[in-house]
Amino acid sequence: MTKLIIQDRITKLRQALKDSNITAIIIPTADPHLSEYLPEYWQAREWLTGFTGSVGTLVLTQDFAGMWTDSRYWVQAAAQLAGTGIAMQKLQKGALNHGDWLAATLKPGDTVAIDGNVLSLAEQDQLFAAFDAVLDDESQSESESDADSDANLTGDEVDEVDDAENDGIRLMTELDLLTPLWDARPDLPSAPLYAHAAQFVSQSAKDKLTAVRQQMTEMGASHHLLSSLDDIAWLTNLRGSDVDYNPVFLAHMLITTATATLFVDGQKVDKNIAQHLADAGIEVADYAAIKSALSSLTPDDLLLLDPNKVAVGTLSELGDDIGMIERTAPSTFLKSIKSAQDIEHIREAMRQDGAALCEFFSEFEARLQQGERLSELDVDSMLIAARSRQPHYVSPSFPTIAGYNKNGALPHYRALDDNFSYLETADGTPDGAGGLLLIDSGGQYQNGTTDITRVVGIGTVSEAQKRDFTVVLKAHIALAEAVFPEGLSAPLLDAICRAPLWRQQLDFGHGTGHGVGYFLNVHEGPQGISYSAAPTPERAMRAGMITSNEPGLYRERQWGIRIENLVVNLPVATPTETEFGEYLYFETVTLCPIDTRLIQVDLLNTDERDWLNRYHQQVLAGLKNRVAGAALAWLTERTQEV
Amino acid sequence: MTKLIIQDRITKLRQALKDSNITAIIIPTADPHLSEYLPEYWQAREWLTGFTGSVGTLVLTQDFAGMWTDSRYWVQAAAQLAGTGIAMQKLQKGALNHGDWLAATLKPGDTVAIDGNVLSLAEQDQLFAAFDAVLDDESQSESESDADSDANLTGDEVDEVDDAENDGIRLMTELDLLTPLWDARPDLPSAPLYAHAAQFVSQSAKDKLTAVRQQMTEMGASHHLLSSLDDIAWLTNLRGSDVDYNPVFLAHMLITTATATLFVDGQKVDKNIAQHLADAGIEVADYAAIKSALSSLTPDDLLLLDPNKVAVGTLSELGDDIGMIERTAPSTFLKSIKSAQDIEHIREAMRQDGAALCEFFSEFEARLQQGERLSELDVDSMLIAARSRQPHYVSPSFPTIAGYNKNGALPHYRALDDNFSYLETADGTPDGAGGLLLIDSGGQYQNGTTDITRVVGIGTVSEAQKRDFTVVLKAHIALAEAVFPEGLSAPLLDAICRAPLWRQQLDFGHGTGHGVGYFLNVHEGPQGISYSAAPTPERAMRAGMITSNEPGLYRERQWGIRIENLVVNLPVATPTETEFGEYLYFETVTLCPIDTRLIQVDLLNTDERDWLNRYHQQVLAGLKNRVAGAALAWLTERTQEV
Repeated sequence: MTKLIIQDRITKLRQALKDSNITAIIIPTADPHLSEYLPEYWQAREWLTGFTGSVGTLVLTQDFAGMWTDSRYWVQAAAQLAGTGIAMQKLQKGALNHGDWLAATLKPGDTVAIDGNVLSLAEQDQLFAAFDAVLDDESQSESESDADSDANLTGDEVDEVDDAENDGIRLMTELDLLTPLWDARPDLPSAPLYAHAAQFVSQSAKDKLTAVRQQMTEMGASHHLLSSLDDIAWLTNLRGSDVDYNPVFLAHMLITTATATLFVDGQKVDKNIAQHLADAGIEVADYAAIKSALSSLTPDDLLLLDPNKVAVGTLSELGDDIGMIERTAPSTFLKSIKSAQDIEHIREAMRQDGAALCEFFSEFEARLQQGERLSELDVDSMLIAARSRQPHYVSPSFPTIAGYNKNGALPHYRALDDNFSYLETADGTPDGAGGLLLIDSGGQYQNGTTDITRVVGIGTVSEAQKRDFTVVLKAHIALAEAVFPEGLSAPLLDAICRAPLWRQQLDFGHGTGHGVGYFLNVHEGPQGISYSAAPTPERAMRAGMITSNEPGLYRERQWGIRIENLVVNLPVATPTETEFGEYLYFETVTLCPIDTRLIQVDLLNTDERDWLNRYHQQVLAGLKNRVAGAALAWLTERTQEV
Repeated sequence: MTKLIIQDRITKLRQALKDSNITAIIIPTADPHLSEYLPEYWQAREWLTGFTGSVGTLVLTQDFAGMWTDSRYWVQAAAQLAGTGIAMQKLQKGALNHGDWLAATLKPGDTVAIDGNVLSLAEQDQLFAAFDAVLDDESQSESESDADSDANLTGDEVDEVDDAENDGIRLMTELDLLTPLWDARPDLPSAPLYAHAAQFVSQSAKDKLTAVRQQMTEMGASHHLLSSLDDIAWLTNLRGSDVDYNPVFLAHMLITTATATLFVDGQKVDKNIAQHLADAGIEVADYAAIKSALSSLTPDDLLLLDPNKVAVGTLSELGDDIGMIERTAPSTFLKSIKSAQDIEHIREAMRQDGAALCEFFSEFEARLQQGERLSELDVDSMLIAARSRQPHYVSPSFPTIAGYNKNGALPHYRALDDNFSYLETADGTPDGAGGLLLIDSGGQYQNGTTDITRVVGIGTVSEAQKRDFTVVLKAHIALAEAVFPEGLSAPLLDAICRAPLWRQQLDFGHGTGHGVGYFLNVHEGPQGISYSAAPTPERAMRAGMITSNEPGLYRERQWGIRIENLVVNLPVATPTETEFGEYLYFETVTLCPIDTRLIQVDLLNTDERDWLNRYHQQVLAGLKNRVAGAALAWLTERTQEV
């Protein structure tokens, strides 16, 4: 994409702002479902900036164009934005984010536009708070109570400007300035819906609806709006292909105590799916009809929704006198707790995935050994090929991260056609005299979603690299071995994992664990093992949850290490003690050898060695009947005791 | 105290309520300084109920009398309240506290009285929130924004009733209904002030004031009110004897950018102290004059105070148009960080305390062995006698907890003249065939405040007891060995300590660590290692902080175990890594053997054994020149390698 095209788009958008008398516009990276992966239709930020990363917020005024992005994209964004006139803004602690920047730069009476369809209620509240904070400074007397009543504003008409009487910065959410400029704006996706195969479904949509309604009743909600695609897929037992990696489809749901309506493009619903929905008591309406459906609520109704997962624009026709309960959706909690049958299916998916990984690794190492020149991109295609041979495989569960040495030091690195590394030089010696290759990948299977990171040595591995690997392994084992009270808030577990790294004054800058769906999104809540998150009761650990265990260590411009398995929360089966409540432990379900050639065994204590040897026995037992030939030889070799 | 006296007092208070047209009165356990230990003058709750525990809130209406207290006092309170007509109310998760009970029971228009002098601003906000929650249920339209503006109410006249227009439950804080009924109400204490010995003071009061003022300036505060006694003692380098255990004196302070005034009973201030204060630029005013002093603030002023540490009544003459900054006092943070010189003095105090403990233990065990019949009360008096022989000793730092077997299972047990256990039966055999004695005690020395818990075996100790002891020791070592990022919020460390207990499905119901003052309160903030506290930035770990490390395990009606040392946060001196920020480690400063006869050594891993042996070498080295004879023999014997 030439810089001129970007400049032209920016110029046209500036003119549109002028025509509408708007001071600034915010273009976030979001859609009406607040999804991680966006349909092309909603990739306006990329269309306007040329920046292809997954995190970025453009702010445009007549004399400023800046895009905020986080540290993993600073290099890429600087390169892609060069010459466009858009300045890269670092999103980091202690620096102004886009809302604070606007609050600090704009004047009372200025108007900020943002498409309400790509703005969550929670983010709108953050903007209100940032803009009100300015008011507080300027007119102390109106101060805090105003800010708070805005932050808690619920029934107000969302497309109304904020608090006009305050004469502060105004937020305008109902204008669509982009569509008129965007000539060939892509269509919304149109992939057909399909049913999650019955053999892998342990609870009918009807029963799931009943469970959700029970919680609605407990909260006193008459209506419940769902816009989050994985909640809707879980609740309906349907899947789709509207975005990459997540097997979901664009839809909203409105649930009452008696009815349930799925708002979805009717062309995606064939006769069988229509019957499936009818059986569950779910009516079908047009995707866009959600707004008018909400207009029928009366002040006697009470609408439950998750402010982080519902867009302001979706509520544009909701009356301003309708009460709202702003909470995490009941389905988010229900979905996170996998049934015993689900877990059985997931264990099988893990054996399939493990077999695919054995085949990949044995082939990969053999080709390297034969002197073939392989790149990070080859790793991706070989992995997809190996997984594709497994039954029930659907797609990758996220873009493969294959990072060699310095690329591995970027936790979210992605090799691209125009930016990747080779693992071997042309003469067959490892590129850069050898080092560490980090591979983070996963698959969507109808019987489970996988996510695994392994690090393997290429050529000569230094003692410093081995020591780092061993310390990360100690951290991984510390968490894998943890037992903890049922209901403990997940962020509190993080220190147990990090303690072995901290002992060596080491740390890593990402979360230690995220929830994982069942043939659904590889990232899901409510739990997450990250001490930067508040340990609220919403993040409580419950039996049946699946979480990643993925401590890491990243040496800038040198190498990166991460060891990731998925773990299931299970109740301690035969507790030695019962007077101190119920306890959960982690069953590691991911099955794939951890490269013992990278371990400095003397740094492991007896318990840690025992864990590693037990794990490898479990890997061998789980996979040995699933692979043959070179893959079996590789598996056997790599699960030897240390 | 006869039940009739209590009944009579309750009757008279009910009549006073009727006369003033008040529906309910709350009598908390508090004073105008929100202190842990109260002067007798402020022990109204005990005077009205006969209950002698440290936690209790009485609520009285015409047809209800109830006292809320926590689990450790349920047995004692039930016994002491029996026959008084006052019902014991359990303070526990999931049950109504007194505020919720009042909100649920009273009607709009009812008036609740509470003496504003014993009610913190923060607790007043909690009452407002509880009462407003009722309003929300009853009249949905006024809902949340009102509740929030109350919770943030700052400049309002505090003795005004809440939100009269809402017609809800009204709070009245300006009435003193007790003094007219309380014939022989004790006087306020009158102990003289004294200077913290100059040899142990590393920063002058003047410099401390400068540091506080610097933070006031950063926050934009023109005035700063301090009512917390340890903050005032720290800031002035003065000490007192107005309450038990904490070497503090009753006072308030008002600090401006140019002046500082200590509000204190003038009779406590002799010429030397007056000079000491004058040298620091601190004026003296009468204790009661704080209220009128606050009346002179103007709307141009901004008053900094800690809402948890300032009573509503202290602000009764503050104008309702005065802005407030409600935050933890700067001195609370400054006080928590001990200087290198302070830490040197504390290490010496720990050697003194350790020597006293060796003398105590050797004498105690010898007398037991000689068949003497000793009780929990004897432990207390022997400990005080041993500590009193040490230089710079002032007093115990809290009431000794000496609990044998089932008494040890009550974490805050205190042997009383009319309720204690013997350790030996009359015929010389251990009471109950032997078991565990838990001793938690500490001393105030001019050069440091100590707090230590040890468990010792008496007679035959069971394998189950030894196993419990060993698991608690593993938890203690896990925390003692922790290294962690500078600035980590202390509550996040708790899981590292509890992990070894959780592994065995064990846990304990109190915090793992509290901050400790320097010749000041044995409990101080801002840090605290307890996962039930929010891991806020205010609780960040900083170099120089002193915290207790005291995991435990309590078998109801059987035995209790707690192993407590104090630890200092020190920066890792020669970090092996520097690219991941600064790290702190714990130096254990408490010196006293841990009873190795209670350890199942095979349950310890190599690292844990190494820690224990290193610790005992450190104890021996620190104390061997401080004790002689039997005490030295005891020390040498008890620090043998395992």
